[in-house]
Amino acid sequence: MIERGLLIVLSGPSGVGKGTVRKALFEQEDIKLQYSISATTRRPREGEVDGVDYFFKEREEFEHMIENKKLLEWAEYVGNYYGTPIDYVEETLASGKDVFLEIEVQGALQVKEAFPEGLFIFLAPPSLSELKSRIVNRGTETEDLINNRMRVAKEEIELMDAYDYVVENDKVENACARIQAIVTAEHCRRDRVSARYKRMLEVE
Amino acid sequence: MIERGLLIVLSGPSGVGKGTVRKALFEQEDIKLQYSISATTRRPREGEVDGVDYFFKEREEFEHMIENKKLLEWAEYVGNYYGTPIDYVEETLASGKDVFLEIEVQGALQVKEAFPEGLFIFLAPPSLSELKSRIVNRGTETEDLINNRMRVAKEEIELMDAYDYVVENDKVENACARIQAIVTAEHCRRDRVSARYKRMLEVE
Repeated sequence: MIERGLLIVLSGPSGVGKGTVRKALFEQEDIKLQYSISATTRRPREGEVDGVDYFFKEREEFEHMIENKKLLEWAEYVGNYYGTPIDYVEETLASGKDVFLEIEVQGALQVKEAFPEGLFIFLAPPSLSELKSRIVNRGTETEDLINNRMRVAKEEIELMDAYDYVVENDKVENACARIQAIVTAEHCRRDRVSARYKRMLEVE
Repeated sequence: MIERGLLIVLSGPSGVGKGTVRKALFEQEDIKLQYSISATTRRPREGEVDGVDYFFKEREEFEHMIENKKLLEWAEYVGNYYGTPIDYVEETLASGKDVFLEIEVQGALQVKEAFPEGLFIFLAPPSLSELKSRIVNRGTETEDLINNRMRVAKEEIELMDAYDYVVENDKVENACARIQAIVTAEHCRRDRVSARYKRMLEVE
């Protein structure tokens, strides 16, 4: 019996470097994650392959998927739909592979709604930790600048609440190592492992 | 403000290789764990240093620690007491270091009682996963042998229930890597990180 894979969702505030971290992660040789392929209504660009880069769909087809709740999340950008097809994710998980999804905060919240057993990782800007020294060294910054940074930080911390893990993006390689560690650790969680052993014993 | 360290408890059935894994773990260069120093009433051997290898105690002193609940766990082996002093663990955690404790199953359960917020890792024998192929390839093993292995496996799986993680000791280096991943991941847990950020913002 194959152990079901994990759905790993990487998200975080815009500009934090989600795409850069995802790219670096998938350049690693020992990576065992399957990148989630999105569905879209935008036209394929030269060299893009259906089922590899995207699942290319007609508008009507995509709207049909929305109606039939066949998307973990979706959004419309500049006139085109983008979304994550549930069937592709489910089939990949069932084959025992972990699926990795990199996505905006609003999309992550939609995924959490549809798939609460996913693993939600918040990529945090290093400015959050830097904030401490900035506060301590107040004299060197204007009051307004500090207050503004505090407000932004508070908003970001509130966003974290829906997530299981927070990974600081101080350096891309550190962030990748932490994400890999989280995936490894989650596969060692006792509830998962003992369920696997118990199923194994029932096999006979 | 220093973030409090984690107490990491490695345990598992006798003979699984806890000591070997612990030793290999502490030989790694990037290890940031502090090994928990035990108290004992046995005499120091040549070269052993008080406060480094053990905290050497008189029997009366040790019994006083038991009475005053100054030990996370304790046991008596061949006429000598051994135990884990709470004060040493608490001070090390307060200094921001993670404390690592390698211990028998009975001791781990005592620690869990006294320190439920610890991280409990069960080191599992690879025989558990090997069991599956043995069951599948039944023909090659006697019924008695299979039944005995199943019984032992069931007992081991029941032992796991008190733990947070299960690490299979298929290879010492794999087990070490999984333990390191668990520690890294636990430091990224959202509840821990957001509490840290929230404390940080309250500093001002």
